[in-house]
Amino acid sequence: MQLTLGTDIGGTNTCTGVVDVSGKVIKKASFPTGDYVKAEDYADALARCVRELMAAVEADADEAIEWVGLGIGAPNGNQLSGCIEHAPNLNFKGIVPLADLLKTRLDLPVVKLTNDANAAAVGEKLYGAAKDFDNFIMVTLGTGLGSGIFVNGELVCGESGFAGELGHMTAIPNGRYCGFGRRGSLENYCSATGIRRTFFDMLAQRGGSTALDHLPIAEVTSKHISEAAEAGDAICQETMEYTGRLLGEALASTALVTAPGAFFFFGGPVQRGGVLMNTTRESFEEYLIPTYKNKIQLIESELPSGDAAILGASALAQLA
Amino acid sequence: MQLTLGTDIGGTNTCTGVVDVSGKVIKKASFPTGDYVKAEDYADALARCVRELMAAVEADADEAIEWVGLGIGAPNGNQLSGCIEHAPNLNFKGIVPLADLLKTRLDLPVVKLTNDANAAAVGEKLYGAAKDFDNFIMVTLGTGLGSGIFVNGELVCGESGFAGELGHMTAIPNGRYCGFGRRGSLENYCSATGIRRTFFDMLAQRGGSTALDHLPIAEVTSKHISEAAEAGDAICQETMEYTGRLLGEALASTALVTAPGAFFFFGGPVQRGGVLMNTTRESFEEYLIPTYKNKIQLIESELPSGDAAILGASALAQLA
Repeated sequence: MQLTLGTDIGGTNTCTGVVDVSGKVIKKASFPTGDYVKAEDYADALARCVRELMAAVEADADEAIEWVGLGIGAPNGNQLSGCIEHAPNLNFKGIVPLADLLKTRLDLPVVKLTNDANAAAVGEKLYGAAKDFDNFIMVTLGTGLGSGIFVNGELVCGESGFAGELGHMTAIPNGRYCGFGRRGSLENYCSATGIRRTFFDMLAQRGGSTALDHLPIAEVTSKHISEAAEAGDAICQETMEYTGRLLGEALASTALVTAPGAFFFFGGPVQRGGVLMNTTRESFEEYLIPTYKNKIQLIESELPSGDAAILGASALAQLA
Repeated sequence: MQLTLGTDIGGTNTCTGVVDVSGKVIKKASFPTGDYVKAEDYADALARCVRELMAAVEADADEAIEWVGLGIGAPNGNQLSGCIEHAPNLNFKGIVPLADLLKTRLDLPVVKLTNDANAAAVGEKLYGAAKDFDNFIMVTLGTGLGSGIFVNGELVCGESGFAGELGHMTAIPNGRYCGFGRRGSLENYCSATGIRRTFFDMLAQRGGSTALDHLPIAEVTSKHISEAAEAGDAICQETMEYTGRLLGEALASTALVTAPGAFFFFGGPVQRGGVLMNTTRESFEEYLIPTYKNKIQLIESELPSGDAAILGASALAQLA
């Protein structure tokens, strides 16, 4: 029996799962990422977690297990170098060669690392809705906007290992302030946090009341806004429409680079469908050049949301 | 001796050249593209031109010749299908399967077709400055803005065969009117025609006089504007600076998709260097995310401008 390991490194928890060839997660374990300040100590902890998982699965198995390898999805993960580079939400700063640290600690044929969105793209290709696509772009909407790109059946890493950073594209020249002293980046509009900012912008521009007026500002989430939009709240509807128009236009521009057969969407705001995805589709088709019109699909991810990150990471080891 | 054929289909002339393995054009012939209304007649004429060239080279040669194949660079050429699709500046409308029409007329192992900018990218990779790059983007500035993209050492065609259409990216939302009812596309700003339009915009906004005031409007070209900018004319300098700022910003956004190691530039406006390229470099670095800063080169094409299109087309047959 062939099994693969996938690790999802989040700012809060590090979750590892054992995945079978059909893409089913058969056992999971996790520990708090923040417990470790030094990268070596963290690597020790992750290696221990992986070894314990492997031992537990082997103890339960009634046939021999062939371990394919370990894939890791990490913030700011560089697939070419196997390093985590300057991740803002992790304790270990600078450039951490995590794939190498784990190779020396584990006896596995493959240890690979990439960033979360690339892992999602590989997962969608191997286990999800992108199986039949050689040219596609995965878009993940959460706190930010991430992306992973396939060209000619291969994940695009680029010369630096950091291809697929669509969240930093300029959506509105001289628009909202982002990090790095830059302005108007797509993820400041089209992400869970971007939706929140647009909601406040609509409140400023339109005035009046909304269905969310009873909520403390700190508690307003994109989910509240999305749900209020579906229930007919005008300000929330405009918020989601504005988000969709910008997202559709940005994806229509992105399509000009690699001419994908489809975009896949992962993450709460987009997977809830509704106003946001309807407007995104309309705007996308409107901005496409004639050559592309009605030829590029916008498809919701088929990865199970709870296990998507682990599946994506494990798929990376499979594709090695 | 291995020789390859390259054909450049322009709105005015169709030029074919015989290219040796070092990238030297050893013989050329051409005929007026507009003489033929039907695609079959045009294919007959092109096949005749190719056969005559081959015969002439064979007659002069003192060793046996192995013909590698024919590559064709055509407006709206689709490399996947070998068709010219809806080329606005050619007589034959609709979808013309030109590669197939020539395969049946010529006894060559390879006949391939692509668009002009893709051909330029392949030419730069095989014969020019891109030899050492597996991930790069070729940008061609002429009447419009074209591009050809390499990822992992391969030309990107995309699902439709029409990848690399950067000229249609939105540079200014709701900006200048383009074709197709779209607005604000990059090539309406960053191309020879775009530079002319910006010059008139600067005249409108700034008022005053320029070094080009003696010219009839119809005769003003991007070359005049570029030369006047270098000579110190304020309006022309601002025109070229505006062009460079937009081009740099657009390329910084494009870099986020495939993370190329370099952009290469072909065409009069960019290859003249000066204000335009200086401003493009400054703007590009300014808009890059920190991960990419000082890591992506902007390089002028090393293809000889007179033979670049033929070299690019012939390179396509070589890479087959």
